[in-house]
Amino acid sequence: MELFEKHKGFLDRAIQANKERTFYAAYPEFPSKETYGEDADKLGQTFFKDSLGKKFEELNSEGANSWVGGEESPYLGTELGIQYPFYESDELIKRAMDSWGEWKSCSPEKRAGILIESLEGVKKRFFDIAYATMHTTGQGYMMAFQASGPHGADRAMEAVAIGYEELKRFPDSASWVKPMGKYEIKLKKSWIPQPKGISLVIGCSTFPTWNSVPGLYASLITGNPVIVKPHPKAILPIAIVVAEIQKVLKSQGLPMGICQFAPDTIEAPITKKIAANDSVKLIDYTGGPQFGDYVESLPGKTTFTEKTGVNSVILHSANDISKVAQNLAFSVALYSGQMCTAPQNIFVPKSGIDSPEGKVSAEDFARMLGESIDGLVNNPKAGPFVLGAIQNSNTLERVSGFDGGKKVLEDHEVENPMFQSARTRSPKVLLMDTSEKDKFSMEQFGPLAMVIQTENIEESIELAGDLAEQHGAISCGAYTNDENIKNQIKDRMASSFTPVSFNLTGNIYLNQHAAFSDFHVTGGNPAGNASLTNPEFLIKRFVWVGFREPEI
Amino acid sequence: MELFEKHKGFLDRAIQANKERTFYAAYPEFPSKETYGEDADKLGQTFFKDSLGKKFEELNSEGANSWVGGEESPYLGTELGIQYPFYESDELIKRAMDSWGEWKSCSPEKRAGILIESLEGVKKRFFDIAYATMHTTGQGYMMAFQASGPHGADRAMEAVAIGYEELKRFPDSASWVKPMGKYEIKLKKSWIPQPKGISLVIGCSTFPTWNSVPGLYASLITGNPVIVKPHPKAILPIAIVVAEIQKVLKSQGLPMGICQFAPDTIEAPITKKIAANDSVKLIDYTGGPQFGDYVESLPGKTTFTEKTGVNSVILHSANDISKVAQNLAFSVALYSGQMCTAPQNIFVPKSGIDSPEGKVSAEDFARMLGESIDGLVNNPKAGPFVLGAIQNSNTLERVSGFDGGKKVLEDHEVENPMFQSARTRSPKVLLMDTSEKDKFSMEQFGPLAMVIQTENIEESIELAGDLAEQHGAISCGAYTNDENIKNQIKDRMASSFTPVSFNLTGNIYLNQHAAFSDFHVTGGNPAGNASLTNPEFLIKRFVWVGFREPEI
Repeated sequence: MELFEKHKGFLDRAIQANKERTFYAAYPEFPSKETYGEDADKLGQTFFKDSLGKKFEELNSEGANSWVGGEESPYLGTELGIQYPFYESDELIKRAMDSWGEWKSCSPEKRAGILIESLEGVKKRFFDIAYATMHTTGQGYMMAFQASGPHGADRAMEAVAIGYEELKRFPDSASWVKPMGKYEIKLKKSWIPQPKGISLVIGCSTFPTWNSVPGLYASLITGNPVIVKPHPKAILPIAIVVAEIQKVLKSQGLPMGICQFAPDTIEAPITKKIAANDSVKLIDYTGGPQFGDYVESLPGKTTFTEKTGVNSVILHSANDISKVAQNLAFSVALYSGQMCTAPQNIFVPKSGIDSPEGKVSAEDFARMLGESIDGLVNNPKAGPFVLGAIQNSNTLERVSGFDGGKKVLEDHEVENPMFQSARTRSPKVLLMDTSEKDKFSMEQFGPLAMVIQTENIEESIELAGDLAEQHGAISCGAYTNDENIKNQIKDRMASSFTPVSFNLTGNIYLNQHAAFSDFHVTGGNPAGNASLTNPEFLIKRFVWVGFREPEI
Repeated sequence: MELFEKHKGFLDRAIQANKERTFYAAYPEFPSKETYGEDADKLGQTFFKDSLGKKFEELNSEGANSWVGGEESPYLGTELGIQYPFYESDELIKRAMDSWGEWKSCSPEKRAGILIESLEGVKKRFFDIAYATMHTTGQGYMMAFQASGPHGADRAMEAVAIGYEELKRFPDSASWVKPMGKYEIKLKKSWIPQPKGISLVIGCSTFPTWNSVPGLYASLITGNPVIVKPHPKAILPIAIVVAEIQKVLKSQGLPMGICQFAPDTIEAPITKKIAANDSVKLIDYTGGPQFGDYVESLPGKTTFTEKTGVNSVILHSANDISKVAQNLAFSVALYSGQMCTAPQNIFVPKSGIDSPEGKVSAEDFARMLGESIDGLVNNPKAGPFVLGAIQNSNTLERVSGFDGGKKVLEDHEVENPMFQSARTRSPKVLLMDTSEKDKFSMEQFGPLAMVIQTENIEESIELAGDLAEQHGAISCGAYTNDENIKNQIKDRMASSFTPVSFNLTGNIYLNQHAAFSDFHVTGGNPAGNASLTNPEFLIKRFVWVGFREPEI
């Protein structure tokens, strides 16, 4: 309980932040020397270099069947050569089941204390995780630090806070006294939040911690043992997080089966074997829609998925069109469009966008967007760092090969001054009309934006809504000065369960979703069946079971 | 909003009761004249008699395609001949979709006010509903009054209270100010709980209001239009409830499509056609497992099911065995075992039950239970009223034809002094050992109890746990004076997600689950996938959608 006492104030603040939904950062998001120490960055670089070509020994490896690995750096163009302890899936299941009882019997306070302590350990590794993230996902340095480090830890903390709140929502016991006229019936009633069973967290290649820690911490705070199955191309960042959790478990004399790591390789995948096991009751998944649909279809499992989306921007009117173009240019270029929240389709009505300078046509806007992107990516002080590198060469080929409408901006390599071998690609911009709906109805993952001319604003709204409903959407941008149009957009996108960012200009972008405030993915459209983090994300991981007996 | 103001205190009290989990009855459960009026009972009888052989005109019937009905009284042995307005399923869907917008745009306060006002209307109909329930389900008068009346209304109120709380859980909007060093980013963020879509509530033949109103009120408070599909043999009780809701909607100028009634007949069922419609997003179901499995398997729906269970009693030790036998005798006889919570399997270790008088063997206990049941059912002042009548003649045939082990008590008809034609059956008691596991592994719905001799208490606990896990369980009884054994039972039944009532004697029974305190059905085993009413039962009916824009 001393860990709980140590972190209680921090936990209370996070619970409060979830209620208020005002800005809150549990972990400082800037990699400043004042916050993290003079040498922090250098130590992170050293950690990464020293890890290459070796066994990653921080994870529990007792009784491991072998060591596996197969990561490559999109910046270096080389294999990392890091090996992680591998266990066969039956072994993982057995260890999880054997450890469950001890974890279940820990109080919510004890679990919260352990988990927050582990996040404090993770905080000390933010720079290690940043370099691990860069060299597996291709993210630029700043995103790699923020998303995998403090923002990821915020998301984990958010899950712990809501989970703790839900576990403590009902009294442990109550005296139930029922008046029966001349006498009364007295029962002592008690309730326990019974965890559902083994939780499998399946990671993705682009956001290996940010997308995995919510499910990981949500399952742990609610008393379930977790098996973390990282994407075979992005293992190290989340390996560090699991190692930090295992460290605290060990210090508390708890078994390692409570939180296990299950790396595999592209050649010998193990995910399905674990997922299909009867003892696995919870599955968190981030990744492509095909495997996501498989996960959702598994009988007898509670699943939390984030798959794919076709994100739209609806342009109607704006006071400063060039600022809109600049803002969207950044959103499109950021991490080369490899974000689930990146905008893809930009709808402009045939009559143009209303602006103080008159109407701006789809063609004009496409040109402005192209120029803004061009200016950004070719600025050597910004472009390479905003773009980062392409995680998977398939993305590069898909974008290069994608054609339609009129090409406004060609995609091309962008030289990275720090990494000569970096796999880079700037965004392609196409201008088309709605006759090419088959092109823009699918997610085209990667650096690609389509400016689409519609009949009118109503068609723009309908298309954005329909695409979200049919193919999923995780974000939506809209620009309008008209309250009536704004409400129409709100109504239509709400009914397709898609959040909307209105009139963003300057340094805030529609593809940034914050913990403690935005419900990332609503869970209501095909982009995913869960929202991170709303109360449902926690309470579906355990079951209230009641006991009653006469009170004497 | 005046309805909300009128009922606000009542709502607050219910929200508080849900938090405290101490005894709370929103609606007085005794049919006393002081509470409900001198003539209330007589008026209820008159209402029922006057309804026979006529069209039920209280429901909206505008544009109805025809009138249908096919109820029979298990007491009178005759058809009720009441006809209800019938709409084709496409028509129901269209009307629901057309009305949704208006209901969605009502605030949680407005919806709560309307729904509580409808329950106040239902309260004035408790005696109408009681007689309607008796003559469709076969329940005895007291149960018909309590379960379909005040207890049902309590369950509806519980759903409204938790729903309201969840809808108001997050602020409508918040100022989000993010410090960025030299400047700050200011966003106005807002969130709405977006209802999922059409809700279908499928009723059962034994508890037509108690089992249906939680889903009905849960979907309505969260902004979804509801179609209530009653069991074709138990229409009138829930028809009254829907009529009362429609009355309040009408008084508020709201469309009838918000809450529609969809009766059908055994010969021409319409449930699957409605359930499979793409616009139906929520399904509440109570009934047999086969149809329940179909409901759960429908893709793209959020389902809340209560199916079936094999409920166990574990006997280990007791201070007064005869009181245990009497208590269980009542539980077995109540409504002739036609309750989802009725005990079926009573496990006694070979070494016997510990008692102050020494060990009581399975055979001895079976005899005591048989005698207690015999005494109860043959007491003309109690038996016929506790037993009620058999809703479905199949139940009667199944129980009569069921055999196994040694017959301790034969089932037989019990004369009902008020209804000569009543379809009655007293419980059968069988004594067997675990070699006949195939007999007691299935739910044998109706008046039947099996006393099963096990090797030891450990086997009793394992059997109760395994059966719950594999076949579902909604209740469990246990009798022990040993804390260690009690904890073993708690652990095992918690891990099969089954609530346990310990050491009940006197006038409290394991098959009674109360609103505002017990989580009826845990949702964790095959007996059903939802718990009534926990927060999950509400929050799965809507989706949080957020909007953001710069704050100026």
